[in-house]
Amino acid sequence: MPDDISHHLVTVLRAQIGTRFELVFNDHQCYLAELTSTAPTVSATIIHALGRNPELPVHTGIACGIPKTKEKPEMIVQKGTEVGVQQIIFFDAERSISHWQGNKRARKLARLQKIANSAAEQSHRNVQPQIYYCDSLKELLNSYPATHRLVAWEESAKQGETSALVKVLRQTTIGESLLAIFGPEGGLSSEEVATMESQGVIPVGLGPRILRTETAPLYFLSAVSVITELVSSDKK
Amino acid sequence: MPDDISHHLVTVLRAQIGTRFELVFNDHQCYLAELTSTAPTVSATIIHALGRNPELPVHTGIACGIPKTKEKPEMIVQKGTEVGVQQIIFFDAERSISHWQGNKRARKLARLQKIANSAAEQSHRNVQPQIYYCDSLKELLNSYPATHRLVAWEESAKQGETSALVKVLRQTTIGESLLAIFGPEGGLSSEEVATMESQGVIPVGLGPRILRTETAPLYFLSAVSVITELVSSDKK
Repeated sequence: MPDDISHHLVTVLRAQIGTRFELVFNDHQCYLAELTSTAPTVSATIIHALGRNPELPVHTGIACGIPKTKEKPEMIVQKGTEVGVQQIIFFDAERSISHWQGNKRARKLARLQKIANSAAEQSHRNVQPQIYYCDSLKELLNSYPATHRLVAWEESAKQGETSALVKVLRQTTIGESLLAIFGPEGGLSSEEVATMESQGVIPVGLGPRILRTETAPLYFLSAVSVITELVSSDKK
Repeated sequence: MPDDISHHLVTVLRAQIGTRFELVFNDHQCYLAELTSTAPTVSATIIHALGRNPELPVHTGIACGIPKTKEKPEMIVQKGTEVGVQQIIFFDAERSISHWQGNKRARKLARLQKIANSAAEQSHRNVQPQIYYCDSLKELLNSYPATHRLVAWEESAKQGETSALVKVLRQTTIGESLLAIFGPEGGLSSEEVATMESQGVIPVGLGPRILRTETAPLYFLSAVSVITELVSSDKK
């Protein structure tokens, strides 16, 4: 078994020979395993596949304008992972006050990836969400295609727009992908939204209340789960 | 105008005579107002009602087993307020490790109420959610009736239960009330869930992933908004 997993299992969790645990392989399937040796090498045997799939039926990514504080990206990554996100891109938006440059950027991304991996483990995910960085909105729109691209737009909410999100989610079918874009603290500029619209990104409201930059992605991901997992199973 | 609002407006925000701002009265309506004097007393005149209603169509409360850390109740209150909660009760659950006793309790509640008030202002709510404390599950069930009472139950999620939440939310009509109960970090005990079920509380799953104690209420509140605000407007 890989060193980090062995260390976590034997040293941190003090697992003994015979201890059963769950392992996720690169095939994104979860297996029940049993520890068979702890020294000199840590090894385990697979008992059977668990056949559990806690992944959202559509591949869901979020792109967030870099927030001002250190805590907000961490919260977005941790909570987003719990609610099923598969890809998180932080992009340098027009109103982003923090910029992630040089070494700082690599350190940030490594730390956020670690938070994603650990949250994926804790929430029994089969996939570790991947964390990326984009220099600009232009790069984001060029590099991250998706079947449906949405932008959370406060003005939509103010104008009482309430159904575009549900319409898009209902049109989405298994195997398709979603990407939702969110602004930093000061919001997106009208120019940014116009650029997105010209490339087919759909503006959506997230209910009639003003949500903070770290809350909006969680509302969106919960909505994806409710419409694609709960409502659709209610129809069966 | 009340001292705290006057202070915030004139001293913190440095409003001048003629500055227009939004005021919410005890009737839970939002009005556009204009500052008419700053000294010796701060006064304003009402221009007109804004007729905006950012409140959930059903009165929604959450009851959370007291979490271990100081940060989690604060996050639940702040984010819950943004997503529309109207009542938050922290109760001493079987597996709560922290207990709020004596002076500590009063201080905690005062601080959480302040966080709720400030989040309500920031998210343009017309209602400040009220924060309460309950000594036990028994007191909670006796003192907080609601048209529909739910409990988020991890075992429901594990057994693949996915539609009870949506069923209840679809049955809920305007003017009714909802109360959803959540466990602390270690979850609720089977005895606690049995007690709730015997009193008509409905166990619901919140999707196939394991959510942390502070994430589950936000998923639930987002689901209430999606089903009662977004899906129902999509049908019109």
